Amino acid sequence: MNKIRIAINGIGTVGKRIAHAVKLQDDMELIAISDVAPTPTLRTVLEPNGPLYGVDLYASNKWGLENLRNAGMYVNGTLEDLLKNGAVDVVVDATPAGIGEKNKSLYEKYGVKAIFQGGEKSYVAQVSFNAIANYEDAIGKQFIRVVSCNTTSLCRTLWHIDKAFGVDEVFVGLVRRAVDMWNDKKGPVDAIVPDLKFPSHHGPDVQTVMPWIRIKTLAVKVPTTLAHVHQVHVRLKTEVSREDVISVFNYATRILVFKGSEGYTSTATIIERFRDLLRPRHDMYEVAVWEETIGVDDKDIYWMHAVHQESIIVPENIDAIRAAIGFEDKWKSIKKTNESLGIQK
Amino acid sequence: MNKIRIAINGIGTVGKRIAHAVKLQDDMELIAISDVAPTPTLRTVLEPNGPLYGVDLYASNKWGLENLRNAGMYVNGTLEDLLKNGAVDVVVDATPAGIGEKNKSLYEKYGVKAIFQGGEKSYVAQVSFNAIANYEDAIGKQFIRVVSCNTTSLCRTLWHIDKAFGVDEVFVGLVRRAVDMWNDKKGPVDAIVPDLKFPSHHGPDVQTVMPWIRIKTLAVKVPTTLAHVHQVHVRLKTEVSREDVISVFNYATRILVFKGSEGYTSTATIIERFRDLLRPRHDMYEVAVWEETIGVDDKDIYWMHAVHQESIIVPENIDAIRAAIGFEDKWKSIKKTNESLGIQK
Amino acid sequence: MNKIRIAINGIGTVGKRIAHAVKLQDDMELIAISDVAPTPTLRTVLEPNGPLYGVDLYASNKWGLENLRNAGMYVNGTLEDLLKNGAVDVVVDATPAGIGEKNKSLYEKYGVKAIFQGGEKSYVAQVSFNAIANYEDAIGKQFIRVVSCNTTSLCRTLWHIDKAFGVDEVFVGLVRRAVDMWNDKKGPVDAIVPDLKFPSHHGPDVQTVMPWIRIKTLAVKVPTTLAHVHQVHVRLKTEVSREDVISVFNYATRILVFKGSEGYTSTATIIERFRDLLRPRHDMYEVAVWEETIGVDDKDIYWMHAVHQESIIVPENIDAIRAAIGFEDKWKSIKKTNESLGIQK
Amino acid sequence: MNKIRIAINGIGTVGKRIAHAVKLQDDMELIAISDVAPTPTLRTVLEPNGPLYGVDLYASNKWGLENLRNAGMYVNGTLEDLLKNGAVDVVVDATPAGIGEKNKSLYEKYGVKAIFQGGEKSYVAQVSFNAIANYEDAIGKQFIRVVSCNTTSLCRTLWHIDKAFGVDEVFVGLVRRAVDMWNDKKGPVDAIVPDLKFPSHHGPDVQTVMPWIRIKTLAVKVPTTLAHVHQVHVRLKTEVSREDVISVFNYATRILVFKGSEGYTSTATIIERFRDLLRPRHDMYEVAVWEETIGVDDKDIYWMHAVHQESIIVPENIDAIRAAIGFEDKWKSIKKTNESLGIQK
Repeated sequence: MNKIRIAINGIGTVGKRIAHAVKLQDDMELIAISDVAPTPTLRTVLEPNGPLYGVDLYASNKWGLENLRNAGMYVNGTLEDLLKNGAVDVVVDATPAGIGEKNKSLYEKYGVKAIFQGGEKSYVAQVSFNAIANYEDAIGKQFIRVVSCNTTSLCRTLWHIDKAFGVDEVFVGLVRRAVDMWNDKKGPVDAIVPDLKFPSHHGPDVQTVMPWIRIKTLAVKVPTTLAHVHQVHVRLKTEVSREDVISVFNYATRILVFKGSEGYTSTATIIERFRDLLRPRHDMYEVAVWEETIGVDDKDIYWMHAVHQESIIVPENIDAIRAAIGFEDKWKSIKKTNESLGIQK
Repeated sequence: MNKIRIAINGIGTVGKRIAHAVKLQDDMELIAISDVAPTPTLRTVLEPNGPLYGVDLYASNKWGLENLRNAGMYVNGTLEDLLKNGAVDVVVDATPAGIGEKNKSLYEKYGVKAIFQGGEKSYVAQVSFNAIANYEDAIGKQFIRVVSCNTTSLCRTLWHIDKAFGVDEVFVGLVRRAVDMWNDKKGPVDAIVPDLKFPSHHGPDVQTVMPWIRIKTLAVKVPTTLAHVHQVHVRLKTEVSREDVISVFNYATRILVFKGSEGYTSTATIIERFRDLLRPRHDMYEVAVWEETIGVDDKDIYWMHAVHQESIIVPENIDAIRAAIGFEDKWKSIKKTNESLGIQK
Repeated sequence: MNKIRIAINGIGTVGKRIAHAVKLQDDMELIAISDVAPTPTLRTVLEPNGPLYGVDLYASNKWGLENLRNAGMYVNGTLEDLLKNGAVDVVVDATPAGIGEKNKSLYEKYGVKAIFQGGEKSYVAQVSFNAIANYEDAIGKQFIRVVSCNTTSLCRTLWHIDKAFGVDEVFVGLVRRAVDMWNDKKGPVDAIVPDLKFPSHHGPDVQTVMPWIRIKTLAVKVPTTLAHVHQVHVRLKTEVSREDVISVFNYATRILVFKGSEGYTSTATIIERFRDLLRPRHDMYEVAVWEETIGVDDKDIYWMHAVHQESIIVPENIDAIRAAIGFEDKWKSIKKTNESLGIQK
Repeated sequence: MNKIRIAINGIGTVGKRIAHAVKLQDDMELIAISDVAPTPTLRTVLEPNGPLYGVDLYASNKWGLENLRNAGMYVNGTLEDLLKNGAVDVVVDATPAGIGEKNKSLYEKYGVKAIFQGGEKSYVAQVSFNAIANYEDAIGKQFIRVVSCNTTSLCRTLWHIDKAFGVDEVFVGLVRRAVDMWNDKKGPVDAIVPDLKFPSHHGPDVQTVMPWIRIKTLAVKVPTTLAHVHQVHVRLKTEVSREDVISVFNYATRILVFKGSEGYTSTATIIERFRDLLRPRHDMYEVAVWEETIGVDDKDIYWMHAVHQESIIVPENIDAIRAAIGFEDKWKSIKKTNESLGIQK
């Protein structure tokens, strides 16, 4: 079987991770990456010691071509040059929010498939995607949007709970990290910043994947960099026991259950586990549920989970590529992706 | 009418504020303060420029007497010396959590009334108290416990909502400040720390005041010092409009409605308002609800509010003193307290 | 004697404090304040409960006039309307950095005196000013620039040390707070950000006041809001004892010596002292030197001090007003200012 | 040649890194690790996916044996059991500060060599060690102390500067990270905390390695987790040009020069580079000097550098092992260590 030929457009927080993940797949080939600016990250990943050494660099557009060449980088041409050669099957568009939508006509022009990220409006794609929740809907589609980090974590957990017990309604209070670790510009330094609308966009975004879920969300931003935390209340259609809920999370793929009693007391101690496992960039692809926070009261269940905002969408992008190309076996794709990334469950 | 004679035991974050507030009441007299250690705060408030200059200092116990005298402070004796003279009607016990319970026998021995704080177990007192929610239950009681900052904010808001519309059930996700501004020892620096149990103690604590409210809570701690934020979901017994809810909060005492659109975008910008008003120590006695976060969906209502953990319980302590002494007019007490502290509504 | 008639242009972090301080002077009259936007601060200070209630509001310019009126605020006209009436002797320009320079022609046009802030280039004024270091140079000048918070703290401490012992050369490592408490936009959240040039501008800025001081500085920005800290190394022209240095700081006005052993272990515990003194907005007008950090080694002396970036320049502005108007007695002005603001030494 | 047989006592922040680094050396064999408690880190590194999978676990002492076995871990015995068998040539003691000193008699009893860490007093070892500065002094010694992270960075930079130009005297203002990333207990959250003594211990600690250097240091702690930053002023014995200084740093091993103009604007952006290089745990073994902060003024030079407190001492420990065992070629050891760890220069 021929390998799926892939280009990654935009080598930022998300793009650099997906590029590396693509290189780990035995059914994919990373043909090229493209960007517009000589960022420290772009230079670093292409260094002889870097994880993308030897990958062909293109410019996302003509302005970028000039920009990168002025900075002394070797650029093979524009992304359009590459696409017109028919050298690419799927572009993963990991450009900043809103730029993906502008790029769409390019992908249409050359008939390539494209995976967009959660920062884009849902209408940019034919389907908003989560591997666990609706892989089937994306099979063979040209344009797929992988939902954002927060939405991904909610789709994973709610899909499993819904399948097991039936979800009646959901409320989530999101506590978002303010910035990623590398961002030294934005704050706040000492404040809690509410998302000043109701509902926050997260609830409706879950519904782009699972429209049957009744869900409302509120969100705040807090001065930390490591991970988001969600406080979840779900009303089920049936009564369950606490053990039932724990079992679902213990069984489900891409969900890990951590015990505070074993030292996993915060986002910091959980992230340290992934440093200790030598995961690249300490990425945590899994949702991390704290067992002690799981509570049950008749039909009501409660829990808290942590979300590594930089990396949780990486496995979903890999699966989205397979779905786009028409690979039909959802669980086989998930298993392949998991094994390649060191996701054990 | 004779003034109520008051001693404050414990001049920490809470005690120093209540002592100052007592001095602002025309029906109260601050007889003495007591403590055990020559902290910067104790020394500062007693300086000629300090707000408690001239108030008699006692030691909370014999060990404290030695400790304070060794530090060169002038101490009039122990709190017991003072109580045995019958010089005090009410002691406000603002000692660290758990110490109040140990002090109780002293107050019993001399038949003085005592106001405990929310760090104490509820059984220490005959009634757990919130001025708005259950002033009546505390009238004439010897031992009253003013509930903690988080619980106080929930009692105020939920009592008004319950009275207006009838509350069916409540879920709150609490986002707690990690430490007060002065605390340079504890963290976290860069983590979100979940309260590792379900429910967190806040829900049951609300029920010590309003046992009829069905409420569940989850809580996290985040690296900020200024205020807590609550994400609240209430199911009502009847449908309401968003305007109805805003009206209730606009009408209610000790609740302020802030608009993000007017610049009140976070706990930081709200606290700055109280610096600009020259409130002592920038204290915010009121609950601060963000209008934009108020949402209504049939019988479900949602909002976020901020809680100044250092000072929200100050007016409640003043009212608790009046209740203890048998002052029967709840709303008159609240009004007196509000006016003395600059609470406009 | 007629009171000095003053307008404050720009009611931000600095302007709101100077306006309030002017109101506390018996030889000054706050004629008006002006601004361009209906910020929460501007609205708050003008409320019936606010510290500037009743002060006439003007717009800094025509655009501001429209802006403020559209927001429903009562505006008396533009600052130019006010100045052309000859109603003002001195304008304190506390507009954002760089705007003061643009405003200068307005002040020139109407022959009013103006006090600029440290964000302006030094050439905007005839003299860069620190009350302790060079009050005399500013007497009768039309345009005076009060140097920034960091520079003010260095001028105060170095002037006294220089006068006592003779300063040969100075190196300072500045550790700057990232943002003020109210700022919920800027970071960093978890990083140390170096000032990427040598020397940082602070050394040359000290020399605008004390050109004879040889000084080099480096600076970093760190995620805190409360105060800056300076790490200072001074080589003297003569040997001194540690006691000599402590004596100088103990004697000097607007410098306080704090002991860690008494609980003043950080910027947080020091700022809490000013909350406990009920200083408006917990302002600390004084430089805070930690006694334990004072070290002496022959001719070399070392110390660390904290700087409250929001308020340290307030007394200097008051003195600058007096100097501008020709008041000749430096120490009398300093003493008046100190007493009005509660500065004890 | 036989491999050097090594045990690591204490698998915390330092020990886990050294253990992994030992596994990467072709002339060393990791015989065992030992600890006393079933921490998340100990469990994780021994998992099938962990970097120390298959390494024999011992208990540091009898209490630890019980503790680990009670937690269900497989333990081969105590460290003493291992040492009495003569199975180990060198123990790297990475236990908490002060414990190493207590362990010393055990190492003496069995005649094994031991490498201590910088948290121990200098008298615990025959030599305080930095590979660049005094490898020669440690050759064949039984007890070697690798100095702490801050001291290591100063030894590296000052040794090279001293060798090139001759150092007359040094002042450093240290800006220390408050806690490591995983630590969710300690603060401060929003404060700068001075080290309340002069000089801070860092200057004298440099002199344990380079006693001829005149150095004074002051230090503060700030709310960040990623790295320390040093503000350095060195007076040389001769005049140099800025280019000379840059050349020295560009040439020197284990020192990297970063340009802010290329996006390396803070500790956060520099650390992200090592995430992008997929360095385990994003470790930065090198000192990171910011080029723009390098300043020269006759004989005076200035710069700022960042120190990754968790990992900078890893290569020094590897070299210390070789020195202990009598390996005589300093630069060959440094080269071997560098290559094994991906240190390019």
